[in-house]
Amino acid sequence: MEKPYVLGLDIGGTNSVLGIVDARGQVLGRTSIKTQDYRDINVYVKTLYEEAMKIITPIGSLEMFRGIGAGVPNGNYYTGRIEGAMNLPWQNAPFAEMMSKQFGIHCTITNDANAAAMGEMTYGAAKGMKNFIMITLGTGVGSGIVIDGKIVYGHDGFAGELGHTCVNHNQDARLCNCGKRGCLETYASATGVSRSAKEIVTTTNEPTLLRGLDLDKITSKDVFDAAEKGDEVAKRIFDYTGTILGQSFADFVHFSAPEAIILFGGLTKSGHWIMDPVVKAMNENLLPLWRNKVKVIFSDLKESDAAVLGASALAWE
Amino acid sequence: MEKPYVLGLDIGGTNSVLGIVDARGQVLGRTSIKTQDYRDINVYVKTLYEEAMKIITPIGSLEMFRGIGAGVPNGNYYTGRIEGAMNLPWQNAPFAEMMSKQFGIHCTITNDANAAAMGEMTYGAAKGMKNFIMITLGTGVGSGIVIDGKIVYGHDGFAGELGHTCVNHNQDARLCNCGKRGCLETYASATGVSRSAKEIVTTTNEPTLLRGLDLDKITSKDVFDAAEKGDEVAKRIFDYTGTILGQSFADFVHFSAPEAIILFGGLTKSGHWIMDPVVKAMNENLLPLWRNKVKVIFSDLKESDAAVLGASALAWE
Repeated sequence: MEKPYVLGLDIGGTNSVLGIVDARGQVLGRTSIKTQDYRDINVYVKTLYEEAMKIITPIGSLEMFRGIGAGVPNGNYYTGRIEGAMNLPWQNAPFAEMMSKQFGIHCTITNDANAAAMGEMTYGAAKGMKNFIMITLGTGVGSGIVIDGKIVYGHDGFAGELGHTCVNHNQDARLCNCGKRGCLETYASATGVSRSAKEIVTTTNEPTLLRGLDLDKITSKDVFDAAEKGDEVAKRIFDYTGTILGQSFADFVHFSAPEAIILFGGLTKSGHWIMDPVVKAMNENLLPLWRNKVKVIFSDLKESDAAVLGASALAWE
Repeated sequence: MEKPYVLGLDIGGTNSVLGIVDARGQVLGRTSIKTQDYRDINVYVKTLYEEAMKIITPIGSLEMFRGIGAGVPNGNYYTGRIEGAMNLPWQNAPFAEMMSKQFGIHCTITNDANAAAMGEMTYGAAKGMKNFIMITLGTGVGSGIVIDGKIVYGHDGFAGELGHTCVNHNQDARLCNCGKRGCLETYASATGVSRSAKEIVTTTNEPTLLRGLDLDKITSKDVFDAAEKGDEVAKRIFDYTGTILGQSFADFVHFSAPEAIILFGGLTKSGHWIMDPVVKAMNENLLPLWRNKVKVIFSDLKESDAAVLGASALAWE
């Protein structure tokens, strides 16, 4: 019998969401547990199983499932292990193996950005594409690179850390959580936009709607709202952010010559404010042969489903 | 019958070298013609064939050959065409098809840096590696990227133009032949070293052995010779060049997580003068998980054979 379903598991620092997904990318059921409630990963896996069965039983049994795909921060596709994920309770665990054993079906894991890329390729904006780069613009900048229809894992399984490529080698470049300075994600993530906003408000006297806000709580949404109201400083922040991002995209294109770069995550809600400078800067920095030929597009997956869909896509492989 | 040989063709702006290669990477015979003598590509292909037969006949016939691999500037693997190669007499030609027809065996083409990568993987320093990046440091910076044992061609066949990633976004960055500014190859090629030497001699008064030389003819070899004699300016030029190159390598590692980066070309003759700062800068710019784990090594193919070997490696596929 063809197995019509897969399970997709998105493990976040706060919630772990598990969904039943069919081949058309419909999420037929979902459940979730609080990641941080389980210091013992054995209890976590067992609880996940019990919760999963509650949504599986009404539609049939685990025999109808092809496998489980899980998107996990620092999840290693090759080893199946979670290794050194700062915001998870477990620092080093053979997660895929534990899940496979508990559920009795094969579990594959990868990091969240790779899962997002799989989701776009299987159900989303990259359907039919063999070469594209997925960029997630959230707290950081994540990336999943697809070449010849396959996620690039590299020699050790950790390929695709484009958020930590360096865009500023000066001494005073922004400090990144990783310990380095000048990483792309310190400028071109949602957090990067907040940093830029705080910087410009504190170091200039320019009039801006942002000046009235609590500086430590300015979000990219605030900057978007200001730009929509015509605020010149807010617009300039998006130009600045988008230019850095577009320059980096040009470098990425010189590497793998993708058909498209697909954007997902909080910062994409800024729409044309971020897209316009990205596309402009990318094309200005491309070799003539690629100019105006590489698409930059927003993900078309529903945000609430995307992570589970992406994880589930792994299980069809 | 197993076909024991392949033909490797290296088309350069000056010479076109054709060699007979066996599975162990021995060049059993070679011949060459002057590329620029043939404005008509039909005559070029016919002459190549006639020259080839002169070295093939003594050992047997074309039936003993598995195919032809050709490394060509701007050669497109997907289309088999030479497209817009500035230093060749033919601007747009269905080269692979013409060769296949003339020789009666299959011809595959790719650009010279990809051919070099194939050569390293088949016969050289990358034997047994599935994930590595080949960097050629000559007049420019060429690159061939191998992921999962295969050359990365990308959506259009032109992937791997790392020499044109941008290392300096300032207005006064060095102008590249491609029309852009700040391309890696304007700093980190043999030509880049010459430019740095000229720059430092003309803009400072520092004592250096380089000052006595004809400024427009300083080569990376001159800078090497000076460094070997203890010249501080020459050493600083290598530090400067190697640092830029190493910083770029770190970015490349964040992309594809290779096991090694393999260096080939004129600038590698500078040995530790270029290698030391490359390795230092790369490691300083890597995420901790890769620090001191990615090898940077010189090609171990004989320079006179490397191009033909690289091209020939394509024909075993």
